[in-house]
Amino acid sequence: MNVPASAPSATTGRRRLLTGDRPTGPLHLGHLVGTLHNRVQMQENHDCWLIVADLHSLTTRSRREQIGELPELVREVVVDLLSVGIDPQRSTIYLQSGVPAVYDLAILLQMLIPASRLRGIPTIQDMARNAGITDDEVPLGLLGYPVLQAADILMARAEVVPVGGDNEAHVAIAREIAEHFNALYGPVFPIPQAMVSSTPTLPGVDIITDGSRRKMSKSAGNSIRLKDTPEEVARKVATLQGPGAGKSTPEALERSPLFAFVDAFVTDRGVASALKYDYLRGTIDDGRVHEAIIADLEGLLRPIRQRRAELTADPGRIEEIVVDGTIRAREVAYQTLGRVRDAMGLEGLWNGLVEATQKRAEARRRPY
Amino acid sequence: MNVPASAPSATTGRRRLLTGDRPTGPLHLGHLVGTLHNRVQMQENHDCWLIVADLHSLTTRSRREQIGELPELVREVVVDLLSVGIDPQRSTIYLQSGVPAVYDLAILLQMLIPASRLRGIPTIQDMARNAGITDDEVPLGLLGYPVLQAADILMARAEVVPVGGDNEAHVAIAREIAEHFNALYGPVFPIPQAMVSSTPTLPGVDIITDGSRRKMSKSAGNSIRLKDTPEEVARKVATLQGPGAGKSTPEALERSPLFAFVDAFVTDRGVASALKYDYLRGTIDDGRVHEAIIADLEGLLRPIRQRRAELTADPGRIEEIVVDGTIRAREVAYQTLGRVRDAMGLEGLWNGLVEATQKRAEARRRPY
Repeated sequence: MNVPASAPSATTGRRRLLTGDRPTGPLHLGHLVGTLHNRVQMQENHDCWLIVADLHSLTTRSRREQIGELPELVREVVVDLLSVGIDPQRSTIYLQSGVPAVYDLAILLQMLIPASRLRGIPTIQDMARNAGITDDEVPLGLLGYPVLQAADILMARAEVVPVGGDNEAHVAIAREIAEHFNALYGPVFPIPQAMVSSTPTLPGVDIITDGSRRKMSKSAGNSIRLKDTPEEVARKVATLQGPGAGKSTPEALERSPLFAFVDAFVTDRGVASALKYDYLRGTIDDGRVHEAIIADLEGLLRPIRQRRAELTADPGRIEEIVVDGTIRAREVAYQTLGRVRDAMGLEGLWNGLVEATQKRAEARRRPY
Repeated sequence: MNVPASAPSATTGRRRLLTGDRPTGPLHLGHLVGTLHNRVQMQENHDCWLIVADLHSLTTRSRREQIGELPELVREVVVDLLSVGIDPQRSTIYLQSGVPAVYDLAILLQMLIPASRLRGIPTIQDMARNAGITDDEVPLGLLGYPVLQAADILMARAEVVPVGGDNEAHVAIAREIAEHFNALYGPVFPIPQAMVSSTPTLPGVDIITDGSRRKMSKSAGNSIRLKDTPEEVARKVATLQGPGAGKSTPEALERSPLFAFVDAFVTDRGVASALKYDYLRGTIDDGRVHEAIIADLEGLLRPIRQRRAELTADPGRIEEIVVDGTIRAREVAYQTLGRVRDAMGLEGLWNGLVEATQKRAEARRRPY
């Protein structure tokens, strides 16, 4: 095996966890509080696999110029992951399109799930809508997105899949396919479990939105990115509006984007409560709350920026991590695919042909 | 290239043709007059690729015991092909599941065709019905069948695809996908042309049918198989009923299964006309027509049986042909996949990562 000694392995006894990102833009604070902190923690006692899902991004971004952005987007997401504390010695970061066995597995698994089951999944409909695709135009590849995701999960033999609430349906598909496969062909796959995050979603900053409370997201353009400068962070935080100092209720305060940021980033709970109380009384205004958020946010972002600067100053480091991780993923993928083909009988079919051919070749060589 | 000197190659200037069979049972006279004779002729001036489509058979036959029948079914279909005169030195016979690049290509091509376009294809609905699958149970893999078929055709860079009328819709899908791909990413694929066979379909022999004129087919159990013994052939032909000697019209005669066999197998047109005329007059009965059919049919089947006997007496010969053909197909498939990934930008993405990694490794080795 072409795997460094420090790489995760089955012998460590840590449960394998798979999660990842479509490389569609820089990660932001919503990812940090939603999943990245969790991933950094999980790598203490899990064998974490982080997929950079470039094939998944093809389901809605398949034009040549969109694919042309992938090298930069892939690099960016990996820098983001490493900058928040993902340790490539303990976690495997890999490029989905660099593991062809996943395609093979996906085609085989497509036989095991009804198309009607996939049409009913709301996330597929959402993805189509966000990409401006009408119902009639939904490509087969987008309908098959959850099956490709199942192939990623099952290929890695992952047991744990952390998900935001809206992705739980995809893990359910992976479970159904794994159970169906095991029942048909024998126990090959561990049944993956969804680990649903309880983190509330972070609202977007009010930069180009219509003022309604929208989830922070890459596509909505309302995010504070991990790579933003202190000035950008301060400017964006300053756009967050509170419910009105001295003329609000606790309920309105708790619902406001401003105090969602207080809850997410003001680390001292006592300080957070004091901010809320003083704001209700009207002794502080939005500006004072912005300052408090920025101070703690910078405490969080400063070491992330520091690691980012170190990584990007080290040419080839990012690429090396992805290539090594992908090679590691390939090993496991081919092992899994071998077991799958073996269980189905496809491996036996091919081996039988090869053996008969070899016997024939040997018979030819026999002198008498 | 791991290809024997006698193998078909791009340098021969022959147009590449792709066709094939799902290994679901022995081939029969319907195949012989419908496609096999045509294939044998076409190999004179085409680079014929004959796919043994075991993955396609998984779309409706995915249970373990069904896959367990594949080694025998694959062997059987290849013996059938060779026995009718397919020449493995000129034509490439290969096993679909032995060419993994096809899976890769299929996953990429699935992004380029709307699922709604596939749902409307009648053959998909027919295949589901024949396999006892309800609309709601149609697996994603069956819906994707035409895309997998397109991947077979485009992977081989085939220009000509002979089809029965009902498969023309699948070649249309392959054309649409190829045109869409070329428009998006540049001219990679030749646009395949369907070559629609004008051969009338052969009726089944009336053995277990209800007497209605049904197409001869593997699944209907009403076929005369290429491997049937002379006794089996005679017994089956004897079940063919004419429209009634001496009490029929030319129209009824032409519509009857008995005289469909006369048209298909009585080689001398004068003899065939005499049989029809005498039958109309009532001077010969069904039995006499059976004898004439059997005589000419045996003239056709005798050399086929002879080749079959030679082939099966030569252990490993069949398997060697499939293995060699599959390796030849792999070479072309990987070349095509490389061009596809290159045109899409996926190859550049991976190569960029690897190059940066290598530069880093070189920098490490530099002494000062």
